[in-house]
Amino acid sequence: MQPLPNMQKKLYYGSAYYPELWPEADIAADLAHFKATGIDVVRMGEFAWSTMEPDEGCISLDFFRRVIDRLHANGIDTIFCTPTPTPPIWLTDGHPERLFQDEQGRRMHHGARQHVCTNNPAFRERSRIIVEAQARALGRHPGVIAWQTDNEFACHVGACCCSTCASLWHVWLEQRYGTVDTLNTAWGAEIWSERYQRFDQVPQPLITPFVHNASLQTAYRFFTRAMLAEFQCEQVDIIRRHSDAPVTHNSNIGFRLDNAQIFKPLDFASFDDYPDCDNWRHMLDNYGIWRTVKPGRPFWVMETSTSHNGYLAAFQKPHRTGYLTVEALAAYASGAQGFSHWLWRQQRAGCEQTHGAVLSAWGQPTIGYEPVLAVNRMRREVESLMVESEFRPPEIAITYSDAARAFMFTEPHENLDYLQLMRRWYATLFDAGLPCELAFAFTDFSGYKVLCTPYMYHVPAEFMARMLAFVQAGGTWIVGPLTGLRTAEHTVPTDCGLGEIEVLAGVETVFSFPITNTGATGEALGCSAPLEYWASLFACRGSSRVVGTVKGGVAPGLAFITEQDVGRGRIVMLGAQPAGEEGQAMIRTLVSHYAKLAGVRLPLKTTLGTVVIPRTDAKGEFWVAINMDGAGGSVDLPAPAIDLLSGETIPAGSLAMPPYAYRLIR
Amino acid sequence: MQPLPNMQKKLYYGSAYYPELWPEADIAADLAHFKATGIDVVRMGEFAWSTMEPDEGCISLDFFRRVIDRLHANGIDTIFCTPTPTPPIWLTDGHPERLFQDEQGRRMHHGARQHVCTNNPAFRERSRIIVEAQARALGRHPGVIAWQTDNEFACHVGACCCSTCASLWHVWLEQRYGTVDTLNTAWGAEIWSERYQRFDQVPQPLITPFVHNASLQTAYRFFTRAMLAEFQCEQVDIIRRHSDAPVTHNSNIGFRLDNAQIFKPLDFASFDDYPDCDNWRHMLDNYGIWRTVKPGRPFWVMETSTSHNGYLAAFQKPHRTGYLTVEALAAYASGAQGFSHWLWRQQRAGCEQTHGAVLSAWGQPTIGYEPVLAVNRMRREVESLMVESEFRPPEIAITYSDAARAFMFTEPHENLDYLQLMRRWYATLFDAGLPCELAFAFTDFSGYKVLCTPYMYHVPAEFMARMLAFVQAGGTWIVGPLTGLRTAEHTVPTDCGLGEIEVLAGVETVFSFPITNTGATGEALGCSAPLEYWASLFACRGSSRVVGTVKGGVAPGLAFITEQDVGRGRIVMLGAQPAGEEGQAMIRTLVSHYAKLAGVRLPLKTTLGTVVIPRTDAKGEFWVAINMDGAGGSVDLPAPAIDLLSGETIPAGSLAMPPYAYRLIR
Amino acid sequence: MQPLPNMQKKLYYGSAYYPELWPEADIAADLAHFKATGIDVVRMGEFAWSTMEPDEGCISLDFFRRVIDRLHANGIDTIFCTPTPTPPIWLTDGHPERLFQDEQGRRMHHGARQHVCTNNPAFRERSRIIVEAQARALGRHPGVIAWQTDNEFACHVGACCCSTCASLWHVWLEQRYGTVDTLNTAWGAEIWSERYQRFDQVPQPLITPFVHNASLQTAYRFFTRAMLAEFQCEQVDIIRRHSDAPVTHNSNIGFRLDNAQIFKPLDFASFDDYPDCDNWRHMLDNYGIWRTVKPGRPFWVMETSTSHNGYLAAFQKPHRTGYLTVEALAAYASGAQGFSHWLWRQQRAGCEQTHGAVLSAWGQPTIGYEPVLAVNRMRREVESLMVESEFRPPEIAITYSDAARAFMFTEPHENLDYLQLMRRWYATLFDAGLPCELAFAFTDFSGYKVLCTPYMYHVPAEFMARMLAFVQAGGTWIVGPLTGLRTAEHTVPTDCGLGEIEVLAGVETVFSFPITNTGATGEALGCSAPLEYWASLFACRGSSRVVGTVKGGVAPGLAFITEQDVGRGRIVMLGAQPAGEEGQAMIRTLVSHYAKLAGVRLPLKTTLGTVVIPRTDAKGEFWVAINMDGAGGSVDLPAPAIDLLSGETIPAGSLAMPPYAYRLIR
Repeated sequence: MQPLPNMQKKLYYGSAYYPELWPEADIAADLAHFKATGIDVVRMGEFAWSTMEPDEGCISLDFFRRVIDRLHANGIDTIFCTPTPTPPIWLTDGHPERLFQDEQGRRMHHGARQHVCTNNPAFRERSRIIVEAQARALGRHPGVIAWQTDNEFACHVGACCCSTCASLWHVWLEQRYGTVDTLNTAWGAEIWSERYQRFDQVPQPLITPFVHNASLQTAYRFFTRAMLAEFQCEQVDIIRRHSDAPVTHNSNIGFRLDNAQIFKPLDFASFDDYPDCDNWRHMLDNYGIWRTVKPGRPFWVMETSTSHNGYLAAFQKPHRTGYLTVEALAAYASGAQGFSHWLWRQQRAGCEQTHGAVLSAWGQPTIGYEPVLAVNRMRREVESLMVESEFRPPEIAITYSDAARAFMFTEPHENLDYLQLMRRWYATLFDAGLPCELAFAFTDFSGYKVLCTPYMYHVPAEFMARMLAFVQAGGTWIVGPLTGLRTAEHTVPTDCGLGEIEVLAGVETVFSFPITNTGATGEALGCSAPLEYWASLFACRGSSRVVGTVKGGVAPGLAFITEQDVGRGRIVMLGAQPAGEEGQAMIRTLVSHYAKLAGVRLPLKTTLGTVVIPRTDAKGEFWVAINMDGAGGSVDLPAPAIDLLSGETIPAGSLAMPPYAYRLIR
Repeated sequence: MQPLPNMQKKLYYGSAYYPELWPEADIAADLAHFKATGIDVVRMGEFAWSTMEPDEGCISLDFFRRVIDRLHANGIDTIFCTPTPTPPIWLTDGHPERLFQDEQGRRMHHGARQHVCTNNPAFRERSRIIVEAQARALGRHPGVIAWQTDNEFACHVGACCCSTCASLWHVWLEQRYGTVDTLNTAWGAEIWSERYQRFDQVPQPLITPFVHNASLQTAYRFFTRAMLAEFQCEQVDIIRRHSDAPVTHNSNIGFRLDNAQIFKPLDFASFDDYPDCDNWRHMLDNYGIWRTVKPGRPFWVMETSTSHNGYLAAFQKPHRTGYLTVEALAAYASGAQGFSHWLWRQQRAGCEQTHGAVLSAWGQPTIGYEPVLAVNRMRREVESLMVESEFRPPEIAITYSDAARAFMFTEPHENLDYLQLMRRWYATLFDAGLPCELAFAFTDFSGYKVLCTPYMYHVPAEFMARMLAFVQAGGTWIVGPLTGLRTAEHTVPTDCGLGEIEVLAGVETVFSFPITNTGATGEALGCSAPLEYWASLFACRGSSRVVGTVKGGVAPGLAFITEQDVGRGRIVMLGAQPAGEEGQAMIRTLVSHYAKLAGVRLPLKTTLGTVVIPRTDAKGEFWVAINMDGAGGSVDLPAPAIDLLSGETIPAGSLAMPPYAYRLIR
Repeated sequence: MQPLPNMQKKLYYGSAYYPELWPEADIAADLAHFKATGIDVVRMGEFAWSTMEPDEGCISLDFFRRVIDRLHANGIDTIFCTPTPTPPIWLTDGHPERLFQDEQGRRMHHGARQHVCTNNPAFRERSRIIVEAQARALGRHPGVIAWQTDNEFACHVGACCCSTCASLWHVWLEQRYGTVDTLNTAWGAEIWSERYQRFDQVPQPLITPFVHNASLQTAYRFFTRAMLAEFQCEQVDIIRRHSDAPVTHNSNIGFRLDNAQIFKPLDFASFDDYPDCDNWRHMLDNYGIWRTVKPGRPFWVMETSTSHNGYLAAFQKPHRTGYLTVEALAAYASGAQGFSHWLWRQQRAGCEQTHGAVLSAWGQPTIGYEPVLAVNRMRREVESLMVESEFRPPEIAITYSDAARAFMFTEPHENLDYLQLMRRWYATLFDAGLPCELAFAFTDFSGYKVLCTPYMYHVPAEFMARMLAFVQAGGTWIVGPLTGLRTAEHTVPTDCGLGEIEVLAGVETVFSFPITNTGATGEALGCSAPLEYWASLFACRGSSRVVGTVKGGVAPGLAFITEQDVGRGRIVMLGAQPAGEEGQAMIRTLVSHYAKLAGVRLPLKTTLGTVVIPRTDAKGEFWVAINMDGAGGSVDLPAPAIDLLSGETIPAGSLAMPPYAYRLIR
């Protein structure tokens, strides 16, 4: 493992910590519990603006300096956060114009968080001042090993529609389009007489009797995301002037962000998520996708619960005993350097009192305490092997794009949810034993052999160019379904159904239409499945070949899967989604077929619910085998192996994996 | 067929056409496809206000004149529309007071359509100016065979609650009631101390802690509809000053309009609807109801899809192959002179990119193209027979009233939906082989023998008088359920349960109450069925007779069906809705019973899903037999017949009808 | 029976009466029907502000004086109401600031009721003036036997968020907390930087991107309720200055009130409810809970339907024949002195036209008429026995707290609904034949032997003290589930899981977490059931004993039921809700176990759906046996008994109870 800059070569185990909410005298007890549990890093400050600056301009970091000093003296590091998700009351008192305004025109109020428009100039000024004060005060503190900007951007809010945003929107449009006629043409704004005379007339997506123009909707999403990224840049720039510690942001795949822009100026990836123990696959897909934000660098699980998440109106069931250990082990094995809980001590107030913690509000161990001890034991057991080895990434990826998700928000067709669709693709391949991950579309794809790009309505030119290079270098690119249907302006291409990709793939879209429930069946590679969602059905041109053909429905006989050799690789078009169980089987067969052709290395075989994570060290490759589902299972060993923890030899054949067991085997 | 004024004696096949959205150079290709597909009429202009008047006062019809010239030169006619559903940005920029305001007090914004209050004086002035300019410029153009006002009035919006509407509402109330005390008495406004001192105090139906007074709600619906009709009248008057071409509006039974007022100043009926091929009955009930708007005149199907409708967030599945031909044939056979698609070329922008078309956004045939060719072949085949014959209307109708629907919106009881209830009644009779149609309550009922009037909470005096005349002339009027329960002011009658109708029908409403799930069963004509919804149970007075009796429940022994001879006809009261499958059977038995007594002529017998549409020509009657459901079926021929298309003789007996087959048989 | 002050020693049978809505000439017919049906008391005036004061300041009570005179002359008494739920139009015309404003910031409008903020000073002034005028005019009228303030406080509205309320809220907070720092500490407002600098910054619970601080939410509920109680006090004080008649309010357990504060200044309890005949248990639990508002005093059922309730958009099915009689008898037997219907004559206007009544809008008997006659016959039959006897209260109660409900509104966990949970507990015990009732937490608990207090998140000190006294005097207090989890400020205790109660019960909360679906099973007293909701699992300290133990899940082996002797009684802790059918059985077994130990007297055994209500008179105890479910059943007589109505002897053994039969047996 190549540790993150400013960090030690070790595995970190952490927790979110809110000393500002408790009597300072309680810190001593916390320190004792930190030691007992092995927690060696805390994240602090992200909601503490009113502690740092109780009255406008009265800033003091003394409290946090004292805390960080004490932590540092006890061997506990700190990740320090900017507190901008929770503006104090003095920032909005008497200033309703600073509040976030939703698409129904309703202003938010003080009382929760993210209630202020992050584009508001007064907010921005106060943000710069507080971040400057933090960085200046603690930027060189040896206990501060990293910074986090804000927290969970956009976790509660979508696009603000206040008048500040209106002005910025008009500026952004002018920068993007130059002239309003360019915008009118790009958006097809003559439709429904939407045509604008001036940029300042272009509405925000406030309510209308029916829906807004798709181009406007998608553009507003991009505008909002760009503004948020710009806001973060301001903070990062300030921090860097006073600190060498690496900077991250705590993101989540469910929030409406452009993670490409958010992570570009950052040093490492971190995220939070809270799937319950039955949704362990979601945690694994997180490990993959967040690793790809900064390839080659360890990532952090910045927040996850010790047992269950919750707030006033809902909560999860606690993890089963044993799960937390394997969740953490899978993180470390997949490339995490840090694994951190939310939160240390149960909230006594606010709205998250029911969220699991390490200690209860009355300072006693919770049901999450013993699992934390178990995680720490596991960490100590595997740490030396982990830090001297590296995660070996899979050779198959499903490309994930926040921009594609934005397009689908605008145009959901049949209530399609991009995130769910991606996770289903991931689960389809994962459960077939194909070594794969979700990977951000902006990541570096060298090292992969097969890439799947479903549901990317618009394929940006920059992405297309990288894919073409990937294919020409020998990669296999499986394209679709629903990929390439729209232009960058969220309009329909007027040259052919899927734009440039048709030329590259040697196909022509003959018909493009919704195929769900039309009776159409796809046949390919010995599989047969109904087809669903929007379909692009093809005729082959030139040297491309039909791989799958449609039977029945309104357009029988056309191709829905084609294959074209390009350079040393190939482009496979998938024109419609195979549906149901048969559809899953068809996708598995298809990807397995190309994985085999591409020489993808397969992992050890396991029963469903047991996974093997590959790592390499100086001696070669070894596997972290984990039973994730708590039901037990087995791993097929093709040859005798060594158990790296015990040093014992394991015979070839089926290695039993009891519930939540793990083995490091070579 | 008596063609519409200004039109040729032929069947038209058309499409909505938006040349303003595409490069003018593309028109040449469109003309070639028009010829290839047989499209001989286009509808244009309804959303093109910003093309005609890009800046306020800068009006030019030159573009449309050029297009109409070219179309006309190629033998293609135009229906030209006023563009008022889509006010340009200059109409609302800086003028929020012109925007539509909903019942929650929220203003709409520019970006979709129908976002302006059609009662706003500034909007009205601009509407008059643009319509005047259109009519002046193109009113005498030989290519313009008809006009359409606006488009789909009220398709996205209900009742506007802006301050302009408030003022007009108060004027309307004063005109209707004269004094505020009259209003207070009519509405029973002393209830809940609602009582008004002045008309200008009467609220619009803006939000309250509970629901508004029923009288106010229903009155506001009537006010809104009357204003919309007045708006249209302004446009019609202007058009007529400059054009002799007939004028229509493209309506839809699902919108919240008073079609009686809307169509009164118009020359012919047109509508749009988009049922998918499994809901072919909905298209047939449309053909019936829209024919009755202007009895004796052909109607137009102004918009329907070639394959499927759609927008960003939803779409239908495409029609099965063969359906479009029989959908169009059934229209022509039922009295349509025109059948027109929405739309010609797939939208590249806006919010309806997924809607089916004839050409794709990239100018190629869609999956709707071949079906269009098939429609055209069918048209050529049947046209001469059609134009020399007339549709023979059925002798049974279910009266449909927009006013009744307004009452039910105000008072939905058990989530009752007037439109669904009407369609269920229609399907109940239709599937029993009874020749029937939904018919607007304002139509001329001479020619019918049996009329059913269910769910008309209030029976207007004018309608009652026409029904009485109908009955006295020998007709059978089946009244109920839920008919007559309310006064014109949406209050409960205080003389008896159902007002005047009780006297005419010789019944007394003994109890009036909700009968659903009370265990009450109705027995009549050998049928038995549970009863549901609000019930009026009767005792017979004078010479009336009990036909159906209630068993069980809270009021056993009373009548729920009675019969009274009136003049040469009879009034049948139906006091409760028979429920479920048994209820459907009871209604079929009841109506069949009276149809037989009334001497209703029955059509040829068919299997379910195959229909026969009667037409008459100089030689007598013939039948257009169509398999509508795509499953195939048969027609029972009582005697040998002639196939009018092939000239061949068909033997008596069962004539097989393959999927989507049609035969013209005499 | 000890009759209410100012009332006769008799059973009253009444109806809501709206003579202001009908021609005055109709009163004669009403009087005839009152006599025919036995209705001897009417409630009037609650919506008649505009009749009493049609223009601001023009007050006349002449109409109501005439009506009350005529009623009184005919032996019919009046309960007269203040009309403040329905402010006339002149109160809000031109004064939008007086309107109720919801949490989304939307103002209500005139047209229904409760649309005005009851804290608005102008409204308050007009309220005082009209009430003063009423009381002055009719306070000594011999026909006025009681007063009702307003009607159904808060039936349509929750917490108003207008600017008047904002100011009062800030004053209320200052009175409660003294300094803003006290508030900040109490609410833990440093969380999310919510911290306030001044009271006038504390927001109302207007919309935020996520949820408000729990302390703020709960405090705002208390503030709103306190203001409403203060409003009522104003009216009560005015009435008392001019009248000796007792004062009540017509409440309903479903409204968001603090009934403790509402009923404190009142003389007797009254309520309304409208369960249909299948939900007869709901009516019985109402009888219990409303009796406990004023222990030892008769209560009134102020509104219930003769057959069904309804408004424009929904209605119930009518009661089965026979039900109304037993519903009324059960009321009288359970301690009601009055039983009154809503409403006399079907509304002809407004929005409740479909609600059941005694007469139809056209003045004829409805389906509710004959049932009313039957109630009256029953009343005459039982009246002498009833007025010479007293209801004997049960010895088991489930404590019900409006404050606890407020806490659960703020923190519903798994969509928990306090009212539903209470009713389920009641039904669980009731169906097991345990003599129990829901009882307001503020009632006097002397006389009970077993009290159950589930779902009281916060246990107020005052309540705790009374419970402790109850236990020390020999009572058994069953505490939980979810009782004691929160402080008075809706925060989590920081001393231990459940605060003071742990000390008293001799337990320590080891773990506190959501136990639903974790696989945990509780075992106790030979029963076994899954556990659900939020759990507090215990270790016993000192002399307490484990009664129930958890198997499986994440914390096996801990106690979920414990028992501790305290004084002459005991405290039983129930740490989690036993779920499903087995859970119901466990609760029945648990409560039966302690009921037996506590010497609770059990009633006669009956089949499910047949109840026995105990009464005592000079000769001892007798039972009112009633078949409530209409399915028939039986009562087990351990010895021969006398039928008090017929005087006949009934042999020991099973006494058959036909559908809706009743017997008074000794």
